[in-house]
Amino acid sequence: MPLIDPDSLPVRTGTIYPPPLDREVAGRSSIRLGQAGGLTQFGVNIVILAPGAKSSIRHWHENEDEFVMALEGELTLVTDAGETPLPPGQCAAFPAGDPDAHHLINRSDAEARFLVIGSKAAREVAHYPDYGLKVAIADGSVAFTHADGRPYDGEPPETPRTKG
Amino acid sequence: MPLIDPDSLPVRTGTIYPPPLDREVAGRSSIRLGQAGGLTQFGVNIVILAPGAKSSIRHWHENEDEFVMALEGELTLVTDAGETPLPPGQCAAFPAGDPDAHHLINRSDAEARFLVIGSKAAREVAHYPDYGLKVAIADGSVAFTHADGRPYDGEPPETPRTKG
Repeated sequence: MPLIDPDSLPVRTGTIYPPPLDREVAGRSSIRLGQAGGLTQFGVNIVILAPGAKSSIRHWHENEDEFVMALEGELTLVTDAGETPLPPGQCAAFPAGDPDAHHLINRSDAEARFLVIGSKAAREVAHYPDYGLKVAIADGSVAFTHADGRPYDGEPPETPRTKG
Repeated sequence: MPLIDPDSLPVRTGTIYPPPLDREVAGRSSIRLGQAGGLTQFGVNIVILAPGAKSSIRHWHENEDEFVMALEGELTLVTDAGETPLPPGQCAAFPAGDPDAHHLINRSDAEARFLVIGSKAAREVAHYPDYGLKVAIADGSVAFTHADGRPYDGEPPETPRTKG
């Protein structure tokens, strides 16, 4: 049976963000449902945010569609337009190439969870406009650079241009 | 804001199955979340099953990954291995090319709902082993045939080889 019980799977932490950006996703963990089921074309993860935690740095994808559904707790969606609550059952979609940078924040005192689905493109570039950074991902390599292409060596980023 | 409120979207019925197979999915309807959000790389739908309804004829995909998460009600997952309950929060994954034909049935007296994600391949072939049929989908065309390639003109299918 191709069943996947989320409660039976490992809860993973970690990030591809180099220090000191990795601190931005402290308190975030995830359960990889699609990987557990042998899927390769898109990822399906439950993301768990401790109180105060963020899903990611605010970002958008050049090549990969992304979709989220809130599952539990009080989540706040942040986009270029500002902030809005995302209660359980509510969803948001981020088409590939739409430069509306987004992330979710748990501003409550209790854990929150959401389901996220993302395509797995052979080559991907994601942009982090609040920090003037981007990342290129291809063939298992991950390269963070400034928006102008200069290598990003993990130096403290400039103060974010927008808060969130 | 790229928000999607499932309760604000139309509930759609209909099927690509030609008569008399269309009767097999009576009582099934769906809400197209990914389409509402402008996604093109994968579909995200809430499927609503009235009491007794089935998600589809039991099938498997050659080229498209598929993932389901039960949301509400009492669903039963049927695969080559038999039947198993799929309570809310539980999931199942069906990797492209895995010939384990599957569907969900609502055997309860109340409505049931699940979330389904499926890749959108340029060309797809899905197999319906219980009926000895398959369908080829490409460039907007849908062609049902018998498993051996003879056209299927909608004649009453043979008695299913397995129940479910």
